[in-house]
Amino acid sequence: MKDKKLQLHQSESFYAVKWNAGVLTLLDQRKLPNEVIYRDYTSAVSVADAINQMVVRGAPAIGIAAAYAVVLAACSAYQDSPSNWRENVEKDLKLLSASRPTAVNLNWAILKMRKKFKTIEGNPENDLLDLAIKIHHEDIKANYEMGRLGAELIKPDSKVITHCNAGALATGGYGTALGVIRRAYQQGLLKKVYASETRPWYQGTRLTSWELQQDNIPVSLLVDSAVSNLMQMENISWLIVGADRIAANGDVANKIGTYSHMVSAKHHSVKVMVVAPSSTVDMKIDSGKKITIEDRPTEEVTNFYNAKTFSNSIKILNPAFDITPVSLIDYLVTEKGVIRDPDAKKMLAIFG
Amino acid sequence: MKDKKLQLHQSESFYAVKWNAGVLTLLDQRKLPNEVIYRDYTSAVSVADAINQMVVRGAPAIGIAAAYAVVLAACSAYQDSPSNWRENVEKDLKLLSASRPTAVNLNWAILKMRKKFKTIEGNPENDLLDLAIKIHHEDIKANYEMGRLGAELIKPDSKVITHCNAGALATGGYGTALGVIRRAYQQGLLKKVYASETRPWYQGTRLTSWELQQDNIPVSLLVDSAVSNLMQMENISWLIVGADRIAANGDVANKIGTYSHMVSAKHHSVKVMVVAPSSTVDMKIDSGKKITIEDRPTEEVTNFYNAKTFSNSIKILNPAFDITPVSLIDYLVTEKGVIRDPDAKKMLAIFG
Repeated sequence: MKDKKLQLHQSESFYAVKWNAGVLTLLDQRKLPNEVIYRDYTSAVSVADAINQMVVRGAPAIGIAAAYAVVLAACSAYQDSPSNWRENVEKDLKLLSASRPTAVNLNWAILKMRKKFKTIEGNPENDLLDLAIKIHHEDIKANYEMGRLGAELIKPDSKVITHCNAGALATGGYGTALGVIRRAYQQGLLKKVYASETRPWYQGTRLTSWELQQDNIPVSLLVDSAVSNLMQMENISWLIVGADRIAANGDVANKIGTYSHMVSAKHHSVKVMVVAPSSTVDMKIDSGKKITIEDRPTEEVTNFYNAKTFSNSIKILNPAFDITPVSLIDYLVTEKGVIRDPDAKKMLAIFG
Repeated sequence: MKDKKLQLHQSESFYAVKWNAGVLTLLDQRKLPNEVIYRDYTSAVSVADAINQMVVRGAPAIGIAAAYAVVLAACSAYQDSPSNWRENVEKDLKLLSASRPTAVNLNWAILKMRKKFKTIEGNPENDLLDLAIKIHHEDIKANYEMGRLGAELIKPDSKVITHCNAGALATGGYGTALGVIRRAYQQGLLKKVYASETRPWYQGTRLTSWELQQDNIPVSLLVDSAVSNLMQMENISWLIVGADRIAANGDVANKIGTYSHMVSAKHHSVKVMVVAPSSTVDMKIDSGKKITIEDRPTEEVTNFYNAKTFSNSIKILNPAFDITPVSLIDYLVTEKGVIRDPDAKKMLAIFG
């Protein structure tokens, strides 16, 4: 595969997803912050496994990784059989598609890539790689736009809380919720940034704290269940989070604990901002109740950082996401604009 | 010191606190559930350290351990100087008193023991040990009574959630919140028991799950931030928790995360029951706002079970407790009776 230069705004000193000369490189997010390890992938099957194992995570980053994986799948199928690559690639796409169920960006990206198939003549490499790069590029562009739009909502001296990681590590670069926080911080609007640790996978501790440290943005970390206490004790202005899927009525699926924070935000009159690219909106699902919630392995709860296990064998529930009804959301920020008090009608006007 | 037989209802196969022949034995709760290690203490200083390090934890258990520690302190002071033991013991009592700040039972027990000093003639051992045993005995008796009273509130087929550990491990035996759950389970009233893991110290995972397993009471564990999701998805009847201090107006200090669960309970119309002995009520403090909240070492958040550390150095907030305003509490159960919709007036009528 030939080298294709990416014209991307990957300004961070790290990246979650990168394509270079036929190789997809992912930052292994299971190892952060103790080890910064990049891994190379040259087959769609191995990328599907990496998505499933959370080497790469975050709805937009998963979508971008999947787009590049489709390139790998198609090139491999074309090399095996130039005339039948469209049929032969399906097995890989199915695997990719099933690697994680909740984030809609994964299948959004695969669908977008697949639609291109019929217009391609001969070797699909160039056309598909162009499209994957475009998806990647547009995600970063969308993040900068959301950062700008979201920061406009924030008043000076604000204290903000974020949950999980919706940053450069979860996207093509810059981030959704953390894009807004980055921009607001640059503009001198933030007095304090708090991150909740995000059990069981510690995205807050391991990813968000690390990512903000790389940009020298001061952050205070606390356990998830201390967020209500923080809202009670401090004058918190905003809860700012990303999303893994947004239903047509505005209900939001996001990392487990988001709903808990949203309920607390309502109780304490803390404003809620959900920041996600339009690729996260799923207009085919009319309500959050219909979003499939992934149950992750129970070892995520009993093990720590793949290190040590509690010896007792207890029954464990480990839902990876929760659904927040749209009534708890004050602002939905996408690259297409800001929706205040979102509802089905406003969603349809923008995403219909 | 001579042996004094305890007539206690310690029916469990384990205990948090035990006195035998001049030695105070504590179950090292830092090691559960992987190791069941009992440690012997023969000086008040070492008990103060054990309380501070959370070898023993749980407001009532801390109070009982402190009562026995006063016996150790007084005996040692008497052996050193029979005429000046009352003065010489003060240094140890001060250390004990400062070992943890939030649970009122600690100073309640020390004060109760100290009041006895003036009536004692000669060797204080017998009188003080009698009183410490009485404090221990009455705590267990109170737990059984609270278990009975609390279970009377619970309807058949109930699903209940508890947070932290308010069980035999947190008390003289049987437990407060878990006493109610034990009793209700025996009476066949419980369809499901859920325990939240209770970051950062994992009392739910390590202690409550283990303790209920010893009694063959099935329990499902989930991360703290999934409790709101559980209340949204399942028909939960009760949130049942203990307390570390209850102000005169009924505000409750309890393990961090309790307030978060209480806010969620209110949002989902889940009833809230706080179960604590009258020794946890502090009528000298008129509101929860005046309760000192202990900040624990940040390593509790970054380390796991004393095993492994995240290498990044982030600022961490680690409040060990939070305050729930009385308005969120439906029932306060003490051994003196049940208060529905508690308030300052009702509190005064019972505890004044």
